[in-house]
Amino acid sequence: MSGKLFVIGLGPGSPDQVTPQANAAVAAARWFYGYKPYLERLDLRPDQTKIASDNREELSRASEALARAAEGETVAIVSGGDPGVFAMAAAVCEAIEAGPAEWKSVEIEVVPGVTAMLAVAARIGAPLGHDFCAISLSDNLKPWEVVEQRLEAATRAGFVIALYNPISRARPWQLGKALDLLRAVLPSATPVIFGRAAGRPDERIEIVALAEASAEKADMATCVIIGSPETRTIPRDGLSPLVYTPRSLATR
Amino acid sequence: MSGKLFVIGLGPGSPDQVTPQANAAVAAARWFYGYKPYLERLDLRPDQTKIASDNREELSRASEALARAAEGETVAIVSGGDPGVFAMAAAVCEAIEAGPAEWKSVEIEVVPGVTAMLAVAARIGAPLGHDFCAISLSDNLKPWEVVEQRLEAATRAGFVIALYNPISRARPWQLGKALDLLRAVLPSATPVIFGRAAGRPDERIEIVALAEASAEKADMATCVIIGSPETRTIPRDGLSPLVYTPRSLATR
Repeated sequence: MSGKLFVIGLGPGSPDQVTPQANAAVAAARWFYGYKPYLERLDLRPDQTKIASDNREELSRASEALARAAEGETVAIVSGGDPGVFAMAAAVCEAIEAGPAEWKSVEIEVVPGVTAMLAVAARIGAPLGHDFCAISLSDNLKPWEVVEQRLEAATRAGFVIALYNPISRARPWQLGKALDLLRAVLPSATPVIFGRAAGRPDERIEIVALAEASAEKADMATCVIIGSPETRTIPRDGLSPLVYTPRSLATR
Repeated sequence: MSGKLFVIGLGPGSPDQVTPQANAAVAAARWFYGYKPYLERLDLRPDQTKIASDNREELSRASEALARAAEGETVAIVSGGDPGVFAMAAAVCEAIEAGPAEWKSVEIEVVPGVTAMLAVAARIGAPLGHDFCAISLSDNLKPWEVVEQRLEAATRAGFVIALYNPISRARPWQLGKALDLLRAVLPSATPVIFGRAAGRPDERIEIVALAEASAEKADMATCVIIGSPETRTIPRDGLSPLVYTPRSLATR
């Protein structure tokens, strides 16, 4: 008697950026698990129930949802952005691997969404227009030395770098340290984009040179994009500048 | 008399994965430029016009669309997936930077979409669940040595690697060479996902160990995801296996 678990990406925040697939999955489920701000985006029917949990309780949330689905229920876990990018899909897989055998019989449907870096990039041009990487700056789940090694490897590779989870109350210094490390190896004019709440009414997108980038410009809801040495800015009269990374190395 | 240019991401292929924002942008535009298979996805009104071009003519397509918009028209360029990831948004920025001054007055709206690696990842679990990178394997626009350096840096960093543009008639050997390079440095059991046409009726998602991965499994419409040494596979009775990369290094 196995049920189904949807792992749903609600996109960056605007209802305009939620896919029909995500809306259909929401309509199909009866129980909803997630971090409270994501659950608050849902407009549910009386027969649907929300169960909120804190944003550092991914594994217990995944386990509760799987236990419920294993009883035959149709269950949803919701994430902002895409559930596969620093979000709930990996936590669900971890819980399945470590959990009781019956959790392996639960049908899993991961519903992809527009992840934060894509939404932020779209608001200013095409900073991810060439090879790039995405790194979580959280050292809750990996040692800080690994973050530093990855940042260094990313700059050696010439990648544009999208930083997720840049800062939180419990992790106040990591972004500043990362920016210092990047300043030591990248040109000081490299564009840095602080993209907060892209597409939402409280959106704030700021472009600064790496030399002026500081951690205070970010909060928990910010995705930070660091240009590569190829990334360019086009000033425009009366319009905001465009920031983009050319598709080509050879023609420059 | 400046018009507007939408640069629209139509997602991986299923209408279920097209955002309302993309549909609204399609409804608003009068002229549509793009690679023919993407234009064919659109169901347009009689007053809307499609102008198809080949998939290696990005810059001339962007220039034509900008010239039309600069005349005061509302124009759209459509991409599959997300227009900011190895697609048209960067080409539009390049054309604006190099083009006549009036193109800098055209309002640009980039409409993000679900890019291929997210759609493929969702179909098999959470392979992008931790730090990852996206690399275009095309050496039309950068020297092959740069591709090799980036693959090596990505493996040193421990990134999962999503390969876009893995193969084409004009570029038959690059994917095989990349797989050989990766085999020399990654464990032979590393999961490799060949994800073709995710979410479409002709979807084909194949998981093989790196030791068995061969370029014949890919075509132009395939996104190839190479696991990191952390990436794991969960076999399931009667269900397809889940492939995921844990959120954590420290707990393993």
